[in-house]
Amino acid sequence: MAFGRLIVVALAALLALCAPAWAQGPPPSSLQAILDAAPAGDWRPIDPANTVYMTLPQGRVVIELAPTFAPHHVANLKMLAKAGFFDGLYVVRSQDNYVVQWGDAEAKKPLGGASRSLKAEFDHLYGAAEGFTPLPDPDTYAPRVGFTDGFPAARDPLTGEAWLTHCYGMVGAGRDLDADSGSAAELYAVIGQAPRQLDRNVTLLGRVLEGMDVLSALPRGHGDLGFYQTPGERIAILSIRLGSDVPVAERVKLEALRTDSATFAAVIQNRRFRKDAFYKTAAGRIDVCNVPLPVRRVKSEG
Amino acid sequence: MAFGRLIVVALAALLALCAPAWAQGPPPSSLQAILDAAPAGDWRPIDPANTVYMTLPQGRVVIELAPTFAPHHVANLKMLAKAGFFDGLYVVRSQDNYVVQWGDAEAKKPLGGASRSLKAEFDHLYGAAEGFTPLPDPDTYAPRVGFTDGFPAARDPLTGEAWLTHCYGMVGAGRDLDADSGSAAELYAVIGQAPRQLDRNVTLLGRVLEGMDVLSALPRGHGDLGFYQTPGERIAILSIRLGSDVPVAERVKLEALRTDSATFAAVIQNRRFRKDAFYKTAAGRIDVCNVPLPVRRVKSEG
Repeated sequence: MAFGRLIVVALAALLALCAPAWAQGPPPSSLQAILDAAPAGDWRPIDPANTVYMTLPQGRVVIELAPTFAPHHVANLKMLAKAGFFDGLYVVRSQDNYVVQWGDAEAKKPLGGASRSLKAEFDHLYGAAEGFTPLPDPDTYAPRVGFTDGFPAARDPLTGEAWLTHCYGMVGAGRDLDADSGSAAELYAVIGQAPRQLDRNVTLLGRVLEGMDVLSALPRGHGDLGFYQTPGERIAILSIRLGSDVPVAERVKLEALRTDSATFAAVIQNRRFRKDAFYKTAAGRIDVCNVPLPVRRVKSEG
Repeated sequence: MAFGRLIVVALAALLALCAPAWAQGPPPSSLQAILDAAPAGDWRPIDPANTVYMTLPQGRVVIELAPTFAPHHVANLKMLAKAGFFDGLYVVRSQDNYVVQWGDAEAKKPLGGASRSLKAEFDHLYGAAEGFTPLPDPDTYAPRVGFTDGFPAARDPLTGEAWLTHCYGMVGAGRDLDADSGSAAELYAVIGQAPRQLDRNVTLLGRVLEGMDVLSALPRGHGDLGFYQTPGERIAILSIRLGSDVPVAERVKLEALRTDSATFAAVIQNRRFRKDAFYKTAAGRIDVCNVPLPVRRVKSEG
């Protein structure tokens, strides 16, 4: 694994050196051509037991969970989803260029066996075994950015800490003023410019794999902070289920590109040095929140 | 003016030095308190003749134009708006986490006296007279980022070039593969994570001051690149008018915070060192696309 990462880093460095030549020469492969050429092993199956499915009247949202970064919030969310806790609750907030938020906004509904509040999981000490595919470009907010287990992440090598980054489509646990007041009974997803100032201030626990087009196009709320002003504006949550509890025939079978694969390194380079019939000037750089994290549907299990 | 900018830069540098103390000490003023304390001269009136109003069935969008950066595209757009060119055309594309696009997608409608294509205005040589309020933090994409005339912008001091940056709400002129094929007869607005790879590849010509909540919540298209797949999905443009051609009683009177003012420098510092009852860790940095550009309504002229 460490050796695999070394190869990726070496390849990235080599490609970075070659890049000015690309910018002058023939255009690189298209993103789709890179994905089409990926060996099967560069894709990983999404484990249904590590996902939640949220069904709204407008459509369905599939979220992959991030137990490496937020083990306790993920475990609590799984308990809540298993118990049908969210069914009949609402999307209560849609703040333009910021977040959509849903669940038990008033923290009044009984949680069954789940916890009412959890210790913050804003960051953790990464060990040698935790994978990380670094980006070579400077980041405004963090000493180092890259990808771990398919999620955009940041690291501080001086302190040994790692954390998830607030990119578009990331999902976090709402909390009150106390850092340790979140429980995953209230969740939010980023629907605008990455609010990276929230990094290490809120517990991120997953990422939307499908259905961002549903969440991001919900009508904006016009109360303070984008809360809907009347009960009638809220969006009913028909259900939130653990993916493995959804009947097989109703599931989608998804695969994600491994972020520690050579194909992903090629995707990064393709996007850093975008040069084709349309692009006249390649940026030669990329922001961690602009790197695509490819997900594909494979033949249904049903 | 140069002296004014010097003061702003000096103030920003001073505040940057003070910031770690803020992070330990009492919370800084809230953003609203900073704005409320701004002297009247730190706000600039928005000139109706430098805006366009787009009316959709879902609501109204007000765009401020950027003649410093795209004088020819702005002049062409004004001619088109004056002639009612856009009325009866459509929003044809809404690609999630990317752009909404509208106007004459097929470049078939007669343009009257306006030009069918214009030389690209991707960047220009800035002179000593062109204002720029720099941000102190590193940017992934550009050597220097900051603000000019109320717009987010970037500079390369080595080449003397300046350009607008593709932040949320920025408006550009669609084009074909040829760099010089845009005309402002087709426009787009950014509705997701800043696609900074488009910087210097497309002519940006303005910014949405009001109505992003309308544009960003339009249903996503599900054709390639987010184009609507059927004519029925398209959103009718009821009208696009030059602001100064809108009857006074139907206009909004807007003011924007001057980006070369001391108040704006304080806004930047407030957002860089966000530390209040909610925020536990201040980023101490900010991305050019995360800096708020305050706009307020003042008493109507009507």
